[in-house]
Amino acid sequence: MANPDYSLYLVTDRGLAGDRSLAGIVGEAVAGGVTCVQLREKLCGTRDFIDQARQLKALLQPAGIPLIINDRIDVALAVGADGVHLGQQDMAIAEARSLAGPAMIIGISAESLEDAIRAERQGADYIGISPVFATATKADAAAPLGLEGVRRIREAVKLPLVGIGGITEGNAGAVVAAGADGVAVVSAIIASRCPRTAATALRGQVDKARKETRM
Amino acid sequence: MANPDYSLYLVTDRGLAGDRSLAGIVGEAVAGGVTCVQLREKLCGTRDFIDQARQLKALLQPAGIPLIINDRIDVALAVGADGVHLGQQDMAIAEARSLAGPAMIIGISAESLEDAIRAERQGADYIGISPVFATATKADAAAPLGLEGVRRIREAVKLPLVGIGGITEGNAGAVVAAGADGVAVVSAIIASRCPRTAATALRGQVDKARKETRM
Repeated sequence: MANPDYSLYLVTDRGLAGDRSLAGIVGEAVAGGVTCVQLREKLCGTRDFIDQARQLKALLQPAGIPLIINDRIDVALAVGADGVHLGQQDMAIAEARSLAGPAMIIGISAESLEDAIRAERQGADYIGISPVFATATKADAAAPLGLEGVRRIREAVKLPLVGIGGITEGNAGAVVAAGADGVAVVSAIIASRCPRTAATALRGQVDKARKETRM
Repeated sequence: MANPDYSLYLVTDRGLAGDRSLAGIVGEAVAGGVTCVQLREKLCGTRDFIDQARQLKALLQPAGIPLIINDRIDVALAVGADGVHLGQQDMAIAEARSLAGPAMIIGISAESLEDAIRAERQGADYIGISPVFATATKADAAAPLGLEGVRRIREAVKLPLVGIGGITEGNAGAVVAAGADGVAVVSAIIASRCPRTAATALRGQVDKARKETRM
């Protein structure tokens, strides 16, 4: 997929979905304005992971929304996902590229300026700046980089940047104004009573900030 | 790898290794007579898993001992392992074959006669009969199939069969006499104070039973 739109990037968490279906929440979120979806599963078995990925692909492909798989290149290849997202403890970029081929989007979580510069040099397609703000969703998150961290990374790398960690309707615009191409959220949409409304509000802030920044 | 020797198949468990290195234990076990090694990691990150796999490959390849990776085809491909071992909740065989190619050994855990027949039909290369006896190593294990279960599966499928679950020096020979091509162990070697001696004793029982069975 050429030039994906990272404006509003949803990362899933089935633990936050409660008794609602993940596909249902993702469908609502896409209707509200999500532009990219990452399926993140840290506890389930491979077959269950693949089943979830197939469900999301059936939903996202007709809408032209990229499906990114967290960590698992085998799952991404099995379902024909658009990309994989790798943390610093996941497979190295060069290995991932070698298995996944040139067309697969490879995203990297960067927890520092050095991580981001290295990811660009090693051939990543986009960078998740993580965390921008403090977050309760990811227990092992590094220290927040803040808006100043986003600005410094923006000056140092050309790749698309997605800010993640503690993003809300109230601060999403500032993250884009600091240089991010989009924001990624987990709980702000997945745990919302109305994922569609939450997505619309976040997307509105991102679009508004981009418009103002480009003026 | 053509016609691997499944006589004594070691499945790793770092949790049972204590403060000893897994590679050290595996090296001892191979010196004692292990003929096949499966790296099983259910908790660690992908990068750590790959590092472990590379360490074992460096040890096993010169000895001509196949390295099988549990569940993760991405890890198996990244390190050039000889095979993958799939549980009933892991990737389906057809998908795994499509990703892994024709040369990769694909093993399947069968918890019933039906599982075993299906695995053979779907193109598995060997079958792990699991569990033969009751075991404390695998918390989610199915009901034991017993020696009678091994016999029934032996009559129904042509693939190499490896019995796993509660295997000891005392019962390994009976499992082979019932029709298995080998036995797989975790704690009997990994948790042993002397993995080499434990492997030699088990291998001796397997070889003895095979010799007697063929008479």
